[in-house]
Parts: sequence; structure tokens; C-alpha cells
Amino acid sequence: MRLLLISNSTNPGEEYLDYPKKHIQTFLEKDNIGEILFVPYAAVTFSYDAYTEKVQSRFDEFGIKVRGIHRESDPVAAVMAAQAIAVGGGNTFHLLKHVRESGIVDAVREKVRRGTPYVGWSAGSNIACPSICTTNDMPIVEPESFEAFKLIPFQINPHYLDTHPQGHAGETREQRIEEYIAANPGMYVAGLRETCILLLENGNLSLIGDKPLRVFRNGQKPVEVKSGEDFIFLLK
Amino acid sequence: MRLLLISNSTNPGEEYLDYPKKHIQTFLEKDNIGEILFVPYAAVTFSYDAYTEKVQSRFDEFGIKVRGIHRESDPVAAVMAAQAIAVGGGNTFHLLKHVRESGIVDAVREKVRRGTPYVGWSAGSNIACPSICTTNDMPIVEPESFEAFKLIPFQINPHYLDTHPQGHAGETREQRIEEYIAANPGMYVAGLRETCILLLENGNLSLIGDKPLRVFRNGQKPVEVKSGEDFIFLLK
Repeated sequence: MRLLLISNSTNPGEEYLDYPKKHIQTFLEKDNIGEILFVPYAAVTFSYDAYTEKVQSRFDEFGIKVRGIHRESDPVAAVMAAQAIAVGGGNTFHLLKHVRESGIVDAVREKVRRGTPYVGWSAGSNIACPSICTTNDMPIVEPESFEAFKLIPFQINPHYLDTHPQGHAGETREQRIEEYIAANPGMYVAGLRETCILLLENGNLSLIGDKPLRVFRNGQKPVEVKSGEDFIFLLK
Repeated sequence: MRLLLISNSTNPGEEYLDYPKKHIQTFLEKDNIGEILFVPYAAVTFSYDAYTEKVQSRFDEFGIKVRGIHRESDPVAAVMAAQAIAVGGGNTFHLLKHVRESGIVDAVREKVRRGTPYVGWSAGSNIACPSICTTNDMPIVEPESFEAFKLIPFQINPHYLDTHPQGHAGETREQRIEEYIAANPGMYVAGLRETCILLLENGNLSLIGDKPLRVFRNGQKPVEVKSGEDFIFLLK
């Protein structure tokens, strides 16, 4: 299985998919990908066509054609025929609702488990997890279920951040994740900070990025794991 | 119908339910409430008993007994017999999941519509809305449905805040609500800033607090409505 799971598409002040572009390119070049099937269902305030075009502009640099799944009359067949699959960020609930309605959950899981490369960013990384229960997004629409692609056995919290808006009485991110692990004992949550990426290939999980992964599990103190250290415990 | 819908329980550096206490007291005194039925299901990392005791400590000042619904063998009967109902903050998904599992949704709606006073804070204000689709919380557990008590026809976003963590590439609160209204045209969202309270009584809706309500609807610019101004449009 080959997964590239990116925390955030864009750093403040940078262009769309700028910082992760070299990693996306390297990841897809290994399998000589010429066309990628793109799932744009996380888009809410702009069209799926506009989203696909925006991603195409970046993928033009890699010489890869981006094919929007929303244009396919048979989305399951499109998944089964895909060279690679990309799932973009936006609203995770909107993404999962429309992924489920298009009936592709099992097809994506099977195809990616068989080796087709999967690239996700933000909501697209979250949906690779067992569920979307560690998203930061607002539940603006109700998906049929919170169950997601289950490509990995642990949960990612993308855009993991340590700071907290000043004077705000709401929960910190850490408190939210502590609630998740209390309600879901046994599950690991990986707080993936911005500009960081998880790469799974050859049965090995590694972290790309300068900031450590913050890992949470019920009954344990959160631990910081740096790039180059061993992440295999997350896959057990 | 009589509702007191509070944005946040506690301001930073203050004690639990401190700033809203005089409003809660005034609200409940009008109906000579001696006992309130408390719904503690938003608690995740501490027990329902501990939560009920914490609320009791504050309600002791009003001479009101707090009765935890989690101790009732027949929760629906407890709702139908209640003098008043309070729903506390915490995790909104956990709250709604357990409210639904206890089977009290219709009973609370009917009882409150018939005049029983309802006090909610944070998640407890959110669940008074048509759905929990404007919560800020992490979906740590999956409720059977997002449909909530529907005591009011519009959505509240509690803890509404204008600031954004520095250097964070995630969505602002305003962007999240804009996604909600894009996906749910026709719905109003009331951004209820911290230290602010919505009071519904005698068919009239008013705002308690120094900060205006920020009101969102698809296709319209957000508007700021101050305490003393007309809020009745939200009830239509």
C-alpha cells in the first residue's frame, strides 16, 4: 500500500499545494503516474469543476492529468480503473457524505490496498482513517455514517496546532483529542502539524517535515515522535 | 416557551457558571423553580455524577436542587415531570448521542414547548437548535442523527469568535459558517459570542450581553445585531 497523507494544502501566504508539491511529484513518479482520479467532494463554496481545475494547475507541473470523479457516470468503475487517487481538502463531512453517496468507499479501500497510490490532504487525509471522528471541521451536512476508507488503523488530526485563540473559552485541540481517546480507548490519534506529511510505503510509515508528530492514546501521556524515528507502532 | 441559551459556561480566569449566574437565577425565579432536571451527557472526561455536583454547587446559590437525568430509571417520565430542564456544555456529539439513546428528544421538545423553562450553555444551547450542524466540537462519537431538540428554528454557533490562531492554515469560524449556509440555504446562523446569552420568552427573542450577535444567511452579508435591537426575524 502507498499513501501520502498531507496535513494542509497551503501555508499562509503561499500558493495552493506549494510546499508539498515536490513530495507529491516524487510519490507519483515512482509509479509513473500519468493520470490521477481526483475526489473533489470536500468543496462546498465553489464547484467541483473549479476545484479540479485548481488541482490540475498544480499537477500540470508533474505532467499528470487530473480527472474529476464527479464527471464520471460510473464512479466505482473509475476508481477500479484509476492509476492513482487523490482526495482534496475542504469540509470532511461534505466529503464523506458525497463519497458514501457515490458508493466508492469499498472500491477505494480495495484498490488502494492492492497498491494504487493514494494522495490526500487535510480532509483527504482524515478520510483515509478508520473514521472522520478526529476532523476539525464543522458538521455542516450529515454523512450516512462516520466510517471512512480505513486505509490505516489510526486516526489523523490534520492541522494539529498547539496554540489557542487568546481569551477563547472553548476547548484546545489537545483537549478535543483527549475527549476522543477517552471515548475511544485503544485508538491512536496522530496530531499532524501543518507542513507535515505521513508517508506509508513498503509497509513502513515515516514522517516528512520539521515538526514532530504528537501521538495520543488513552491512559498514556502524549508523545512527540520526530521524522526519522519509528512510527511502526501506529500500524499495529 | 421560555429558553435561556448561553454561549459559554465560563470566562477564562472565572469560576464555573459565574458570569451567567444572575441571568439563570432571574430566569428560573420567575417560575419559582425549586428543582431542575440536568442533562450531563456532554461530559466525556469526567463522570455525570461529578458534572451534576459541579452544577449543584452553583445552583445551591439559587436554592435549586439539581437532579441528574442519568440517575433516572425512566428518563422520559423524569422529563415530563420536570419543573425546569438544564443542559450543560461539553462535547455536543456525545451529548446528542446519549440524549437520543435515552429516548428523550420528543419529550424535551414537547415539555419545553408547553412552557417548561430550558437553560442551556454551549453544547446545551446548540442542541436546542434544529440540528447540531453548527457545533465547534470534534465528532468523537457518532449520534444516530444530527437532528436536535428543534426548540428554535435557527442555528446557534456558540463560542463565536472573530480571531484566528496565528499562522494557522485552517478555516476561520466565519468560513466554517459560510460553508454551513452554502450547504443549507434558507437557514439562519446566529454567531453567539462568549459572555452572550439569547433569551426567548413571551414569544420574544432578546440578546443579553455587550457583544452583538453576528447573523449569517446564504446570499446575504453577515449582519451584526445588538442587544435591544429586533431579533424576531430569526423566529420566522
